[in-house]
Amino acid sequence: MIPTTEKASPDMRVFEQLESEVRSYCRSFPTVFEKAQGYKLWDTQGREFIDFFAGAGALNYGHNHPAMTKKLVDYLTSGNIVHSLDMATKAKEEFLKRFDEVILQPRQLDYKVMFPGPTGANTVESALKLARKVTGRETVISFTHAFHGMTLGALSITANSFKRHGAGVPLNHAVSMPYENYLGDAVDSLTLLERYLEDKGSGIDLPAAIILETVQGEGGINVASSQWLKQVEQLCRRWDILLIVDDVQAGCGRTGPFFSFEAAGIEPDIICLSKSIGGYGLPMALTLIKPEFDKWAPGEHNGTFRGHNLAFVAATEALSFWETDTFTKETLRKGEKVKLALQRMADDHPELEAEVRGRGLMAGIAFGETDFASKVCKEAFTRQLIIETSGPDDEVAKLLPPLIIDDEGLDRGLAILEESIKAAKA
Amino acid sequence: MIPTTEKASPDMRVFEQLESEVRSYCRSFPTVFEKAQGYKLWDTQGREFIDFFAGAGALNYGHNHPAMTKKLVDYLTSGNIVHSLDMATKAKEEFLKRFDEVILQPRQLDYKVMFPGPTGANTVESALKLARKVTGRETVISFTHAFHGMTLGALSITANSFKRHGAGVPLNHAVSMPYENYLGDAVDSLTLLERYLEDKGSGIDLPAAIILETVQGEGGINVASSQWLKQVEQLCRRWDILLIVDDVQAGCGRTGPFFSFEAAGIEPDIICLSKSIGGYGLPMALTLIKPEFDKWAPGEHNGTFRGHNLAFVAATEALSFWETDTFTKETLRKGEKVKLALQRMADDHPELEAEVRGRGLMAGIAFGETDFASKVCKEAFTRQLIIETSGPDDEVAKLLPPLIIDDEGLDRGLAILEESIKAAKA
Amino acid sequence: MIPTTEKASPDMRVFEQLESEVRSYCRSFPTVFEKAQGYKLWDTQGREFIDFFAGAGALNYGHNHPAMTKKLVDYLTSGNIVHSLDMATKAKEEFLKRFDEVILQPRQLDYKVMFPGPTGANTVESALKLARKVTGRETVISFTHAFHGMTLGALSITANSFKRHGAGVPLNHAVSMPYENYLGDAVDSLTLLERYLEDKGSGIDLPAAIILETVQGEGGINVASSQWLKQVEQLCRRWDILLIVDDVQAGCGRTGPFFSFEAAGIEPDIICLSKSIGGYGLPMALTLIKPEFDKWAPGEHNGTFRGHNLAFVAATEALSFWETDTFTKETLRKGEKVKLALQRMADDHPELEAEVRGRGLMAGIAFGETDFASKVCKEAFTRQLIIETSGPDDEVAKLLPPLIIDDEGLDRGLAILEESIKAAKA
Amino acid sequence: MIPTTEKASPDMRVFEQLESEVRSYCRSFPTVFEKAQGYKLWDTQGREFIDFFAGAGALNYGHNHPAMTKKLVDYLTSGNIVHSLDMATKAKEEFLKRFDEVILQPRQLDYKVMFPGPTGANTVESALKLARKVTGRETVISFTHAFHGMTLGALSITANSFKRHGAGVPLNHAVSMPYENYLGDAVDSLTLLERYLEDKGSGIDLPAAIILETVQGEGGINVASSQWLKQVEQLCRRWDILLIVDDVQAGCGRTGPFFSFEAAGIEPDIICLSKSIGGYGLPMALTLIKPEFDKWAPGEHNGTFRGHNLAFVAATEALSFWETDTFTKETLRKGEKVKLALQRMADDHPELEAEVRGRGLMAGIAFGETDFASKVCKEAFTRQLIIETSGPDDEVAKLLPPLIIDDEGLDRGLAILEESIKAAKA
Repeated sequence: MIPTTEKASPDMRVFEQLESEVRSYCRSFPTVFEKAQGYKLWDTQGREFIDFFAGAGALNYGHNHPAMTKKLVDYLTSGNIVHSLDMATKAKEEFLKRFDEVILQPRQLDYKVMFPGPTGANTVESALKLARKVTGRETVISFTHAFHGMTLGALSITANSFKRHGAGVPLNHAVSMPYENYLGDAVDSLTLLERYLEDKGSGIDLPAAIILETVQGEGGINVASSQWLKQVEQLCRRWDILLIVDDVQAGCGRTGPFFSFEAAGIEPDIICLSKSIGGYGLPMALTLIKPEFDKWAPGEHNGTFRGHNLAFVAATEALSFWETDTFTKETLRKGEKVKLALQRMADDHPELEAEVRGRGLMAGIAFGETDFASKVCKEAFTRQLIIETSGPDDEVAKLLPPLIIDDEGLDRGLAILEESIKAAKA
Repeated sequence: MIPTTEKASPDMRVFEQLESEVRSYCRSFPTVFEKAQGYKLWDTQGREFIDFFAGAGALNYGHNHPAMTKKLVDYLTSGNIVHSLDMATKAKEEFLKRFDEVILQPRQLDYKVMFPGPTGANTVESALKLARKVTGRETVISFTHAFHGMTLGALSITANSFKRHGAGVPLNHAVSMPYENYLGDAVDSLTLLERYLEDKGSGIDLPAAIILETVQGEGGINVASSQWLKQVEQLCRRWDILLIVDDVQAGCGRTGPFFSFEAAGIEPDIICLSKSIGGYGLPMALTLIKPEFDKWAPGEHNGTFRGHNLAFVAATEALSFWETDTFTKETLRKGEKVKLALQRMADDHPELEAEVRGRGLMAGIAFGETDFASKVCKEAFTRQLIIETSGPDDEVAKLLPPLIIDDEGLDRGLAILEESIKAAKA
Repeated sequence: MIPTTEKASPDMRVFEQLESEVRSYCRSFPTVFEKAQGYKLWDTQGREFIDFFAGAGALNYGHNHPAMTKKLVDYLTSGNIVHSLDMATKAKEEFLKRFDEVILQPRQLDYKVMFPGPTGANTVESALKLARKVTGRETVISFTHAFHGMTLGALSITANSFKRHGAGVPLNHAVSMPYENYLGDAVDSLTLLERYLEDKGSGIDLPAAIILETVQGEGGINVASSQWLKQVEQLCRRWDILLIVDDVQAGCGRTGPFFSFEAAGIEPDIICLSKSIGGYGLPMALTLIKPEFDKWAPGEHNGTFRGHNLAFVAATEALSFWETDTFTKETLRKGEKVKLALQRMADDHPELEAEVRGRGLMAGIAFGETDFASKVCKEAFTRQLIIETSGPDDEVAKLLPPLIIDDEGLDRGLAILEESIKAAKA
Repeated sequence: MIPTTEKASPDMRVFEQLESEVRSYCRSFPTVFEKAQGYKLWDTQGREFIDFFAGAGALNYGHNHPAMTKKLVDYLTSGNIVHSLDMATKAKEEFLKRFDEVILQPRQLDYKVMFPGPTGANTVESALKLARKVTGRETVISFTHAFHGMTLGALSITANSFKRHGAGVPLNHAVSMPYENYLGDAVDSLTLLERYLEDKGSGIDLPAAIILETVQGEGGINVASSQWLKQVEQLCRRWDILLIVDDVQAGCGRTGPFFSFEAAGIEPDIICLSKSIGGYGLPMALTLIKPEFDKWAPGEHNGTFRGHNLAFVAATEALSFWETDTFTKETLRKGEKVKLALQRMADDHPELEAEVRGRGLMAGIAFGETDFASKVCKEAFTRQLIIETSGPDDEVAKLLPPLIIDDEGLDRGLAILEESIKAAKA
């Protein structure tokens, strides 16, 4: 266990004075960070923090991975092109080839690669546009507790009412359907969707696409079963609806395999990737499109930072993790370890009505009492563990450690979490 | 003049096979780029190109500026934190302080700084959301030939019909009004807008905001006069409408001063910055908000890549250009040079019905004949000059050289352009 | 039983040549009608038809009720004002007083009376506008298989996909939730709605109103239970949602009591009436509003034919039916008779998988086989019974005889229906 | 001049207590009307009023026209069918034939006749739906100061901000363009529209239809010139846009000829009729559709009161006015008389900055001072003349006397108006 530092907290005044009120995480973690390595962060006071947040899933390979640092420094010092819009570059070519060889081909997946603007929201916006173009339909079906981004199109399929309200205009062309287990065990949540689709009098227009996260991160670590995902895929096939998997947070190995849907054996028509695809936390996003749906006209969706070559360089290096199945296996093993630890905490404190959730290293513990998860995270921060809440009522403490974390790091983090739970109860 | 190379063109097959049909600039500039420095690019065959496109305005300081390279390499090799969501970091703090000292304070501007997702579209989306929240109104007024981005909210205020059509859903809550001179000299384009606003029977709902570019880049290098901008500001004040200046392309010195609206003496309520704000072509965006309108709730607009520290590092270094007014003066001087050269070309070829447009180093030459500008750009590429078209019918050859270009570079580029015009006529 | 006439059918050519393709019922009932009385119609060939359709519910008091005819003729021949916009007239005053005395006061109901344009769609549009104004919210929740009208607002909450498609624009600001038993016995259809409302992460914005028909007419004669209606009312109270009952088809005694919701003991915030409120089939509509929600500004919703005095005259006379409870009792008695007869038909033909539905004299028999109900109605027409289908797949033969029908008429109609079922099977 | 009555005003309490706050005209004309004939009204106190409002244009043939009364009474007393949905009836057949013979054929017009719900709003909604279906486009262009109705679709193309605000949801899919002279003489208001249509970068999506009133009634009696109407028609032809003329208020002879656009020599693709088409003030509406655009599926737009046979009977009789051109000539003659009288009033009171407007018997006098027109109308009412304001600021006193008014009636009304102007000035 790390002793709580006695040092004075860094001065946050610059941020308070100059930055907009919209700032968020710097309020939960009120210090100024300076250094980072792997699963560790250090603030300007030299305090060391364990990172169980990992850039909200953008740092699956940890902070500042040395092999990537080296590639980036080499790239920068060799006069290679850094910004290139969507022009062809050697760095992009290498990424494309490597992605094809290491990710697509071994999985027998056939997708065209689109580089939208380098944010999760932008890959989602591109997916929605394409699905509507291909089908000539407008409605998109998303799910309760879904999070897909904060731009207007992505927000229309995001479920959180606080975030939706921020739009300032009504959010339309989307219908939110119950995610698996939304109505408890008694009701098959797809019954309603299927009934809506097959009934010409349902009031729900035939959709262009169904978009989903296989594990809902912001929504509270809700895990869809393989069976449910397959059923959704079947509904899509039956009515020629495009299936979009938003793998921005759950992809890139977070749940074990590279794509979060691999275990389910489904084949989405469009896949949205961002966050960890850039390897090093550099802005990058991909939209993968089945060739038969790649109906874009040139430039029909574009953006200035599609060609961020530093991200290509780091991303290419990051793909090395995927040459064998070791990385997946290790993630699953650590995931089990986390799950057991969390379950033990839940069992030790039955009065918290805690529920353990997750798949791979995307885990959470939900608490019955309002605000309890927030208290836990606050206590954790004073103990130098970075961990965040999720869920519509912030009722879940969410664990997203870097996948490269070692057992010592995991153990230390989990120990702090346990201690924080106890402190939050006091 | 650079002799056209005899070398074989690089192989584009990887891009054609693996990348989506949506790719665009790699079709106009069909080669594989590898190196870059200042205003020059080299492809994998070693051919040297002059860059009059500058990352569509993202590279005002040129490719791979040595001082920034050094800072980036130092940052990377010192174990500093690279990805940090919107947590407070030393790199971010330095950027904020420097931006305040070098940009805001000397101009007596008082704005809170928001870091949206690192794209131009995202800063625009954040501006629209905030304006709607602050005013409780829905409609936003934009202008003919405007370009503000490709996500759903930004697209709703983008004028180009091809791009709009890509939305796949109707684009609403926005009204497109005539930009200055849209109807020629005879009609004051703001007469209609003013009449609409003051008339309770106009059919145009009172807007939350008016958003504009002071020079329309994608729209064909249309320049608004200071007088027109002031009139727009007055309309905004009269009806409590927020004035948003989208300075994504025209800002960061492109027209001479840091902000494109400085000459007009207006003070927008919200300013959108991206592209060159990152200094080095790294993804970054800012939304500047007058303090009285900074009504965001924490996290009401967020995103994973708000805290891209490499961009902060380069951006901070880039601000050094703004410590004196030399940079502005040089840009204006070069802008005049370009304008004179373009005017001479126009005069030499009266049959082309060419019209010279622009401010600072944001210049264009419009041609009467359809497709002629495209032919010119194509010819230029074979002569190793990178230059693109703009305007609703691609009728304008647009010149966006890096601001740091020297006279030799400018002369060489302009000479190729002239030669390309001649070739296109043949 | 009425023998099928040998006479030649009337010539429909005028309608085919001059009237738009949109015409509908004249295709199902291809003859030219001339006379009508009570539950009978006669065409220009003198053929007598029994009317089990009753103007789609607009003729609860039968065709050309003699007492109303007399009042109308007296009114017309006395020089009384016929058209008066929404100016005060003696005829309107009498209607208002009579409606208050005979309908509202005895039921201890307190509503302000609004006269929208004289169509069902218009009362619905006025209800939606008012609910949105009062609550400041945009979304309205409607139900699967709902029908509320064909103008854009009413259509947005109408479930039928064919009708929705006619809008030509996306239909927004509305969410269709499962009506009672939509998902069968196993699932309480309100569970989902309640969950959606109480969950801040449901993706469904808090609605301005819930609008429903207690018996869905166009939707296939789906009957909501009192318990379900009460539960909906409770949900509305819990979240300050306005409850709108669209009693256009089910009201005015169609299900027994004057308002269809009386049995359930609920008190809607807004009630929509049209069809039979005019007594004689004359265009008229009412919107009843709880006084606390009567937040209209003068003229905020208006229309030319709000003051249709002939309708007021007939409507006032029609209220005489409601001075005692005899009319209600008789309707319920006849409803039972119809139900028994239909059930017998269903039992006699188990292979038709027929299901009997309804309340009061709003009854239906659904058939398992596609198109069978249409065949039955076609056969019935040749036997001189007017009866229509309903339901999203036209799978239900719908019985809406005038409430004033006598037992002989009912028996004759039911006999023809039975015969038609047999004929349709052949 | 009629002496102001000394009698006590009728009691309005029933209306105040039982009717919704939305009531409007009964506030401007606070008495209870009982009798009516031609251009005269009598209240329950026996006071006689001259009607210069004519049911907002629904009573072109005056109140209770004797020939129509007779037909209606005959129809009612002969047991003829009154309500018939859209089934074929003898009364409808006669109307269709007569309309074809008297209106369409002599004008060499070829239109299919659609009977939408019996309100002006409903014919407009049907026109919008059809135009969108036929063209596959969504946007509709309407004009400043337009009024097309209060249901959601019709409201989206209505310009008045108070009325628009009542929608409670944003009004979309429509663009309001300047009506003729909206920007004064200096600017051709169609220049902007034409520029918008021909420019792919205008930000205005190619519309399905342009809808207009040739004389804007609610908008302030704004008269479009024949030349302007022809230009609009040419724009429609050039871009395959449907031209919809909303002749609800200006049609049926109000401006002289049966259709208000006849003088301009244009041929709309869709024509909306209501108000006076029913002859007697009975609810009725028609949508006339060029055969090539009659692409409705059966029942794609429907309604309960499409088959209001009393309206057909009165409407058929009313067509007798159109057998010769006498009626048109008389209307034009009276119109000139009104115009001269109004101009004289304007000239006599230059300080009122009055402006005379109108065509045929659709006339208005606009005043410079706010509220002056309202004062005039109020004074007129005390002098027993019914006259209303129009325009976005109620700045116009609008004259819509029944077309059948005799010279004595006109003179008396105009004399009261003049006296009221004087009184309002005091």
